[in-house]
Amino acid sequence: MKKLLGDEVSKHNSRESCWVVVHGKAYDVTEFLPEHPGGPRIILKYAGKDATDEFDPIHPPDTLDKYLDKSKHLGEVDMSTMAAEQKDKDPSEEERLERIKRMPALEQCFNMTDFEAVAKRVMKKTSWAYYSSGADDEIVWFRPRVLVDVENVDLSTVMLGTKVDIPFYVTATALGKLGHPEGEVILTRAAWKHNVIQMIPTLASCSFDEIVDARQGDQVQWLQLYVNKNRDITKRIVQHAENRGCKGLFITVDAPQLGRREKDMRSKFSDSGSDVQSTSGDKVDRSQGAARAISSFIDPSLSWRDIPWFMSITNMPIILKGVQRVEDVILAVEAGVHGVVLSNHGGRQLDFARSGVEILAEVMPVLRERGWENKIEVYIDGGIRRGTDIIKALCLGAKGVGIGRPFLYAMSAYGLPGVDRAMQLLKDEMAMNMRLIGCSSMDQLNPSLIDARGLTTHTATVPEDTLHLSCYDPLVSPGDKVMPKL
Amino acid sequence: MKKLLGDEVSKHNSRESCWVVVHGKAYDVTEFLPEHPGGPRIILKYAGKDATDEFDPIHPPDTLDKYLDKSKHLGEVDMSTMAAEQKDKDPSEEERLERIKRMPALEQCFNMTDFEAVAKRVMKKTSWAYYSSGADDEIVWFRPRVLVDVENVDLSTVMLGTKVDIPFYVTATALGKLGHPEGEVILTRAAWKHNVIQMIPTLASCSFDEIVDARQGDQVQWLQLYVNKNRDITKRIVQHAENRGCKGLFITVDAPQLGRREKDMRSKFSDSGSDVQSTSGDKVDRSQGAARAISSFIDPSLSWRDIPWFMSITNMPIILKGVQRVEDVILAVEAGVHGVVLSNHGGRQLDFARSGVEILAEVMPVLRERGWENKIEVYIDGGIRRGTDIIKALCLGAKGVGIGRPFLYAMSAYGLPGVDRAMQLLKDEMAMNMRLIGCSSMDQLNPSLIDARGLTTHTATVPEDTLHLSCYDPLVSPGDKVMPKL
Amino acid sequence: MKKLLGDEVSKHNSRESCWVVVHGKAYDVTEFLPEHPGGPRIILKYAGKDATDEFDPIHPPDTLDKYLDKSKHLGEVDMSTMAAEQKDKDPSEEERLERIKRMPALEQCFNMTDFEAVAKRVMKKTSWAYYSSGADDEIVWFRPRVLVDVENVDLSTVMLGTKVDIPFYVTATALGKLGHPEGEVILTRAAWKHNVIQMIPTLASCSFDEIVDARQGDQVQWLQLYVNKNRDITKRIVQHAENRGCKGLFITVDAPQLGRREKDMRSKFSDSGSDVQSTSGDKVDRSQGAARAISSFIDPSLSWRDIPWFMSITNMPIILKGVQRVEDVILAVEAGVHGVVLSNHGGRQLDFARSGVEILAEVMPVLRERGWENKIEVYIDGGIRRGTDIIKALCLGAKGVGIGRPFLYAMSAYGLPGVDRAMQLLKDEMAMNMRLIGCSSMDQLNPSLIDARGLTTHTATVPEDTLHLSCYDPLVSPGDKVMPKL
Amino acid sequence: MKKLLGDEVSKHNSRESCWVVVHGKAYDVTEFLPEHPGGPRIILKYAGKDATDEFDPIHPPDTLDKYLDKSKHLGEVDMSTMAAEQKDKDPSEEERLERIKRMPALEQCFNMTDFEAVAKRVMKKTSWAYYSSGADDEIVWFRPRVLVDVENVDLSTVMLGTKVDIPFYVTATALGKLGHPEGEVILTRAAWKHNVIQMIPTLASCSFDEIVDARQGDQVQWLQLYVNKNRDITKRIVQHAENRGCKGLFITVDAPQLGRREKDMRSKFSDSGSDVQSTSGDKVDRSQGAARAISSFIDPSLSWRDIPWFMSITNMPIILKGVQRVEDVILAVEAGVHGVVLSNHGGRQLDFARSGVEILAEVMPVLRERGWENKIEVYIDGGIRRGTDIIKALCLGAKGVGIGRPFLYAMSAYGLPGVDRAMQLLKDEMAMNMRLIGCSSMDQLNPSLIDARGLTTHTATVPEDTLHLSCYDPLVSPGDKVMPKL
Repeated sequence: MKKLLGDEVSKHNSRESCWVVVHGKAYDVTEFLPEHPGGPRIILKYAGKDATDEFDPIHPPDTLDKYLDKSKHLGEVDMSTMAAEQKDKDPSEEERLERIKRMPALEQCFNMTDFEAVAKRVMKKTSWAYYSSGADDEIVWFRPRVLVDVENVDLSTVMLGTKVDIPFYVTATALGKLGHPEGEVILTRAAWKHNVIQMIPTLASCSFDEIVDARQGDQVQWLQLYVNKNRDITKRIVQHAENRGCKGLFITVDAPQLGRREKDMRSKFSDSGSDVQSTSGDKVDRSQGAARAISSFIDPSLSWRDIPWFMSITNMPIILKGVQRVEDVILAVEAGVHGVVLSNHGGRQLDFARSGVEILAEVMPVLRERGWENKIEVYIDGGIRRGTDIIKALCLGAKGVGIGRPFLYAMSAYGLPGVDRAMQLLKDEMAMNMRLIGCSSMDQLNPSLIDARGLTTHTATVPEDTLHLSCYDPLVSPGDKVMPKL
Repeated sequence: MKKLLGDEVSKHNSRESCWVVVHGKAYDVTEFLPEHPGGPRIILKYAGKDATDEFDPIHPPDTLDKYLDKSKHLGEVDMSTMAAEQKDKDPSEEERLERIKRMPALEQCFNMTDFEAVAKRVMKKTSWAYYSSGADDEIVWFRPRVLVDVENVDLSTVMLGTKVDIPFYVTATALGKLGHPEGEVILTRAAWKHNVIQMIPTLASCSFDEIVDARQGDQVQWLQLYVNKNRDITKRIVQHAENRGCKGLFITVDAPQLGRREKDMRSKFSDSGSDVQSTSGDKVDRSQGAARAISSFIDPSLSWRDIPWFMSITNMPIILKGVQRVEDVILAVEAGVHGVVLSNHGGRQLDFARSGVEILAEVMPVLRERGWENKIEVYIDGGIRRGTDIIKALCLGAKGVGIGRPFLYAMSAYGLPGVDRAMQLLKDEMAMNMRLIGCSSMDQLNPSLIDARGLTTHTATVPEDTLHLSCYDPLVSPGDKVMPKL
Repeated sequence: MKKLLGDEVSKHNSRESCWVVVHGKAYDVTEFLPEHPGGPRIILKYAGKDATDEFDPIHPPDTLDKYLDKSKHLGEVDMSTMAAEQKDKDPSEEERLERIKRMPALEQCFNMTDFEAVAKRVMKKTSWAYYSSGADDEIVWFRPRVLVDVENVDLSTVMLGTKVDIPFYVTATALGKLGHPEGEVILTRAAWKHNVIQMIPTLASCSFDEIVDARQGDQVQWLQLYVNKNRDITKRIVQHAENRGCKGLFITVDAPQLGRREKDMRSKFSDSGSDVQSTSGDKVDRSQGAARAISSFIDPSLSWRDIPWFMSITNMPIILKGVQRVEDVILAVEAGVHGVVLSNHGGRQLDFARSGVEILAEVMPVLRERGWENKIEVYIDGGIRRGTDIIKALCLGAKGVGIGRPFLYAMSAYGLPGVDRAMQLLKDEMAMNMRLIGCSSMDQLNPSLIDARGLTTHTATVPEDTLHLSCYDPLVSPGDKVMPKL
Repeated sequence: MKKLLGDEVSKHNSRESCWVVVHGKAYDVTEFLPEHPGGPRIILKYAGKDATDEFDPIHPPDTLDKYLDKSKHLGEVDMSTMAAEQKDKDPSEEERLERIKRMPALEQCFNMTDFEAVAKRVMKKTSWAYYSSGADDEIVWFRPRVLVDVENVDLSTVMLGTKVDIPFYVTATALGKLGHPEGEVILTRAAWKHNVIQMIPTLASCSFDEIVDARQGDQVQWLQLYVNKNRDITKRIVQHAENRGCKGLFITVDAPQLGRREKDMRSKFSDSGSDVQSTSGDKVDRSQGAARAISSFIDPSLSWRDIPWFMSITNMPIILKGVQRVEDVILAVEAGVHGVVLSNHGGRQLDFARSGVEILAEVMPVLRERGWENKIEVYIDGGIRRGTDIIKALCLGAKGVGIGRPFLYAMSAYGLPGVDRAMQLLKDEMAMNMRLIGCSSMDQLNPSLIDARGLTTHTATVPEDTLHLSCYDPLVSPGDKVMPKL
């Protein structure tokens, strides 16, 4: 078959007819534009051009095969005929490369936040903008026991039937290749080494099979699922995962629409500013808002009525990821699912969503009152950065915690050794802190070891504060004498 | 009739005889001086001079006809005989014009606060000082539901019988021409486009009729009313509004005296410093204080006894704007009015006045206890900047919210397209946030979706803090060695 | 009698024999040194020298006659024979004089804090250090009424039988001449003009009689009393005051020892550093601590048992100034005194002492429960800077408030016109705020108009915070790579 | 015996064979490396070298005799044959010496925090890093009594049978020679002078006997004990202390593992960066974590079962140091011990450990309810910097307080005179504050004198806040216009 020429491709550079080239092949994405979860604008920027560099870190390699109808695969392009993209020299990128040279040694990192600080310095600004987010500072105090034999501390526990060395799992985070060229398989290898479970994200940069193939020995993985409007696709994904050995199905229930992330939007805007054609009210680009909601990738009509169907298509235990109030945990128990993850989606979705640990403090007393605390496994994720954070969650009643971004930061800065050290630091911290609170095994953790009254005061930093303060004019004292004008 | 000459006009330049020229006509305002709501000093600055530039943005065009007795209209002036005002070159104005050139594109604004930030950069300092004010940061947390079908979200609701597309209205804000030369009619057009109601302010820069004339189709407007001591004037205003089609009468009840706004006063002072003749205690200018209170424009004797009279002169629903405690909401129900707006007047009147949302949290449980929650429509205004703010208010029990300054900022920076985008952003935000809390229509919003306990801790920034801190000397550690003096 | 010569005087320059010259007369203060309320060191600095400049602003003119035995009055000095003091050129003083030239016009001050800001700029550093102190920020919110006729607002009330125009009095503050050469008589004149009561301080810079002589018409004054160990002196002071027409006796009960004021101490130290002879532990100067406590000027043994004696020597109403808890208010009622001032001594005595308004919120409910709220007049002082502060105190149940430092600041910066304007601003603010909360007279103020729950959270800035934070090293992120040392 | 030569010594410079020279003698520490409480790395830095300078300030002189088997003592070294260490010129050290010249006079220090500020300026950075830590700011307010005779204030009390002049003791702090070359004996001398008790630390820089030998007259000392895994060693230490006259045995129960102190680790890392050989995950140095836990110096298996044994080997009263919850105080009473020290180990062990005063507020009401408040003496330590802090603790029910770091700071900056002044300042402050709250002896202090409700709100600064905030990107307002790329 004859290859396409650059001249032909470059004509299809508009919303009316939009082709892009990826890895030497051309694709007609005109009809796909409104469906694109990231909005049409970012594609239009590469209309008629080679989009490979932009495409790679944020899409699994099988994306186009899976989601774009074969009829839109236009075949190979004679890349020698494509006009070379003129890349602007980017001073901030040069500074970044300088910073990478001065990057601290891995041994200079002593906690999760250290990795975050290094990642901030060495990552591309846009990648950092995608990963980063605000902090929750939930104030829970310890009430340690003393004079308890803590010579041997056992951090192991059992999650959904799997024995793990420490009660955290690697939770699903999107777009790992933004941080490291190998992507999520690095997390797979580190999880194996430390005998913890990895949850495979729907929106991974590596393909699902790549991540499963990276598994070693009897390593256990779970699947995180965004439910597609097309239930056949969903069914195929779930059954494929079960066939490939996944041991848990975590259905994301808190993302009927992807949140508008303003930091991300502002960062993207400056990237694609040249496409803006108008400042008039009539031509406002709405792609950031409603458009994404109608993407078929995430079904906003997903509801409790769908749970029995999931049970009918898989034998994996089913866990609802993103539950945010006790009433819904009760519904989950009644629906017969095996677990819930209490979460505010890392603070990325809804402003003023309570953190997982806060929701946990609301949930567990109600479950205990009903005698239901063992009817369902309760996890939390978001904001876990310390061994003490894990202990607090378990004292409150969680089975374990999910950790995501800290490992992304460690991976982005140092690759596999970074994630390895991050996990080891958490183990060391947690073992030490177990001794300091006077406990030697997970089953000894209980609510009497903490004072969680501060949780209800919600001291978390509220995002728009900083924004508004930049506009606020404080009252000022009188200035110098105002002289009469002559 | 012969035109007046500049020489003649310029003689009347004192408190004893004060003429001003506006749009080529002279007026004798000597007797009016003490009545001027803005105080006499600002008029005296233009005594014997042409005041048109200062007059225009802060007075409706029909002001002089309406409020100054015809006998004081002195007739046309031969403007060629008026001495030209020597304008000082103003470096800060030149910098402002530079900033306007670098103004961000409308698409770079992603939320209400962005408009505020841009407006701050591009508005005249005195106009900004008039518009701006401190922030309330009421901390209300969400308790979202999951697994609810939110594919279709309907933001519409009914306010005082009018169906609107989203539960906010454009509340009354004074002096729109300070921000944009066309003034409030821009808000009229944007409100039409987004099918929301505009409340017409008494102190608009455009005349009432101009604003009504800008109405399109079946667009609905309300009237905000400052009650004049002369009830005949008030009656005329109200009945004129009803005749012109207004569908609601919002009587401002929280402004028996206009608050002393110190930022504004300090800004005005530097503007008119040359008129200060003395620093002795005996000649202190009192115009900022008592003088304004006796202005007949706002009647400080307005009381509950006046409500029946209002009901007798109009068939419009009557809403009390500025109620600040539950006891008065109960009186409002008993008085038979149709609604209340809970408000602290944007924080512009009384320091330490609680925000609308706080008052709402006090009011609704009491109404519900009495079964009165449907006997009256409850609105709030002030501090609404996010879709989440609207949702929170409706969860607490409000029928809708008034938004004012954010639209002024958008208008000041970008005109109609700015207001259009601001309204669209609010719609997008609110639709997204409805999905994220698991609701698809306004009637589903209820108190169980929020955790409002933080409201009673009043975290709002208290204005004079910043002022006092600038005077405070913190304790310091010892300095260097004090050497013996030789 | 022959005049003393400078040579003779200058020999008495030690702790063993210490003479000082004041207004051309020599005094032997050797035995007086340990009694000096300000400690001996400051006197020793002028041993054998002319101390007039230092003496004047901080002592009433009759001090030496009153407190130093006649035998120690050594007679006149031939001042031409005294060696001229070599004054160092002081650059900070020159800068201060520059700042005075640029001092804002009085009309540029719009509130009490403005006066404080100006005073800070134009006062001598040591004087400012003596006057200034931290801020309390008690958060009390208003619950205003609306639709109440507030056309005429009457601020007058009755304090201890005297009708005043506004419910504040000028409370006793020490050393007025540090701020203005005329001292406290300026406050007398301003109080007359605004028909408020002045409390005459024991530690005034003007003599008691000078302040009484400055009285006009039927002006009312009260006496503030530090109780001397020698009750004869105390009796003489009290009966003299009654004879001169004072209408109230305010006995200070919260100062058994003058507080160590570290800002003041640090400021004084740098002033007298040359006298420090040693840094060894054995010769530590203790004058700042225990020495002052044994001063006979303030009797630390004063107790409830002394109250009947006070009642026996005067017919003036007796008020206890500085009560800090409800238990002591009850004792005060039982002791039959006429009033109490709840106060933390302006935050100058004890760290972590609660502010007057906080104590008031504790006291009044208990009094009301017992039906005692009219058995005693309750005042507060400290931290009153706004008309709203006065209103809040009256809503809580105070009869009135004492204001001290704000008037000192206004006086220091602008003299009598400053104090006049300050009082007028308070009247204007208070009248306006009365309208805004819907009240037209003092007797309408009541607890339902405020939300004082925030009072118990004590948000006042704690002094040593700032001090300690300056020593605190925050955790830091890892630095750059540590390179191997070659 | 023939002296060892430098050549021979320098060969043993690795983990496989590690010799070090201290005070002219060589030691084989190869087998000891994993036991070293400070981790092996710091020793390896001096493998084959003279470690005297590093060794001295942080080990008592009898350390090697006591803890290293005689067979590892290799005998004297001919120091003339040792290669001279090449010391780098250190600019920060030169700046420090400059700062020492400008050190303020002792009399310029007026409170504990002043000493801390001076110590920060004049101490070596690594020593400072070891000593310093964050602040607790517990907000307890006073409710002072007035009109109480406080002429004579008696600060004395009785602790474990010993009469002391003021209710604090010098608590055990490690490594005094980091601050001053003479070490802990300076504290012994100051304690004697002020008649307070010194607690001798296990980890002192001076040897136990040196500290006891520094005792004067009938001075009383206590022993702080880290319990060794080898109970024979522990028994020997305890009985030796009792024989040498110690009057109390304070068993540290809150340190089953020494906390990871990240500031300290980061400071040490930069000191020994050249030894880092790898950044790979496989060679991560674990010495900071698990290794230390297995050190035999502190037995992590210590438990309640051991208490009877301690009672069997000594007649000294036994006090448990580091109790952190009321349940354990009850166990302590039941175990028959004489006292507890409520403490969070100065905030150095466990993040989110509550301060001693907070635990005290939890403990005392429970003891009083059981009538047990006199069955055990309750002490607190940590964060005591003011006379008011001592008074608050006693009001809550403590018998006394331990003060450590403030005296270290005073000692580091000024030696014995510094500690002397620090203690005198505390006495002066406390006497003054006793007067100001209306109490003249310790037994008058009681809970009604304070308002401790603020304690439960935990306002202490949480360490990692500052760390995380350095990574946080606040939301920003839109930047300038993004111009189309040409």
